Amino acid sequence: MTAHASTFYFPSPRTEKFCSQCGKALTRMVPPGDSHERDVCENCGAVHYQNPRNVVGALPVWEGKILLCLRAIEPRYNTWTLPAGFMELGETTGQGAHRETIEEAGVNIELGPLYTVIDVPHAEQVHFFYLAKVLDPALAPGEETLEARYFAPNEIPWENLSFRTVITTLEHYLRDLETGNFPIHHYSIPIPPPKQRPA
Amino acid sequence: MTAHASTFYFPSPRTEKFCSQCGKALTRMVPPGDSHERDVCENCGAVHYQNPRNVVGALPVWEGKILLCLRAIEPRYNTWTLPAGFMELGETTGQGAHRETIEEAGVNIELGPLYTVIDVPHAEQVHFFYLAKVLDPALAPGEETLEARYFAPNEIPWENLSFRTVITTLEHYLRDLETGNFPIHHYSIPIPPPKQRPA
Repeated sequence: MTAHASTFYFPSPRTEKFCSQCGKALTRMVPPGDSHERDVCENCGAVHYQNPRNVVGALPVWEGKILLCLRAIEPRYNTWTLPAGFMELGETTGQGAHRETIEEAGVNIELGPLYTVIDVPHAEQVHFFYLAKVLDPALAPGEETLEARYFAPNEIPWENLSFRTVITTLEHYLRDLETGNFPIHHYSIPIPPPKQRPA
Repeated sequence: MTAHASTFYFPSPRTEKFCSQCGKALTRMVPPGDSHERDVCENCGAVHYQNPRNVVGALPVWEGKILLCLRAIEPRYNTWTLPAGFMELGETTGQGAHRETIEEAGVNIELGPLYTVIDVPHAEQVHFFYLAKVLDPALAPGEETLEARYFAPNEIPWENLSFRTVITTLEHYLRDLETGNFPIHHYSIPIPPPKQRPA
């Protein structure tokens, strides 16, 4: 074992150089019978598939007001977001959305139905947002949140929201409020034009 | 570079032993500020997150008959399935469902709306099935398919289907046929009891 690294990081882009199974250098190739290039170990034979990740979150509502969190982390530091994060192994999308809401806002919610399912292919992600009912308005923001606050529909800080999946989920919600009918919405976020903010 | 491995394989379970960035041995630990154990490199600082995978597929219909594929691969070799497979980087769930249908059945389809979204936490997966219209009934099964065939609703081989997500998607479809209304269905597959087949 070596000394602790001073800073931990998340390898990105996802380039892999060494085999996680045997430690030897990897080769970029199309494995036999496959259709896509993969990181392949020619020593032990391991094929290192990579797949899109799921982001799971909630739209928590207290007496008609929507809970948003001011991001304390990159990307999109200091912008308002719905509580959300990467889905973990062993949980459902709903369990993940519930967990992320507690981690980021420290709020007691009852999760409602799945509301938006959004393909974000350029980010290699699928986003899921659930409707949620706040049971107790007390907030205890976690380390990834500068501030958590409830916003009436006419107070939403549209000019400083975090991601397009958050913006479009809020847009759907305000539109559905008019009818009182909240079906699941599924759509894709197109690749952003240059200089536009990412999804 | 060493000699080609004789057999390529997909590391499973997902245990990682060496860092994909620097090749050194990994440590299992909770990184600073994190809530879950990860595979962490104490040499270069890389944190190797792992996340659930998405499986994307279609329910292709030709003149009221449903297209099923007889699996030529494990798991569930020689059982009937809807065409489906792992979502790839850079594609949407719909593009993946379309691609898998072509790869497994060699059939020309027009993809319809998203139909089922199914959490399968014990398999660390989320499954997505789309409705699809077959444009030309000609079939050209790929290497992962022993046979592809159309089944009328009363001919579905219930006793020899591949996965519970396929079974429940077909059940929803037959029920919705009675009303002609096909909303998105979202649900979870519970952990199977001992000896029952996996999701």
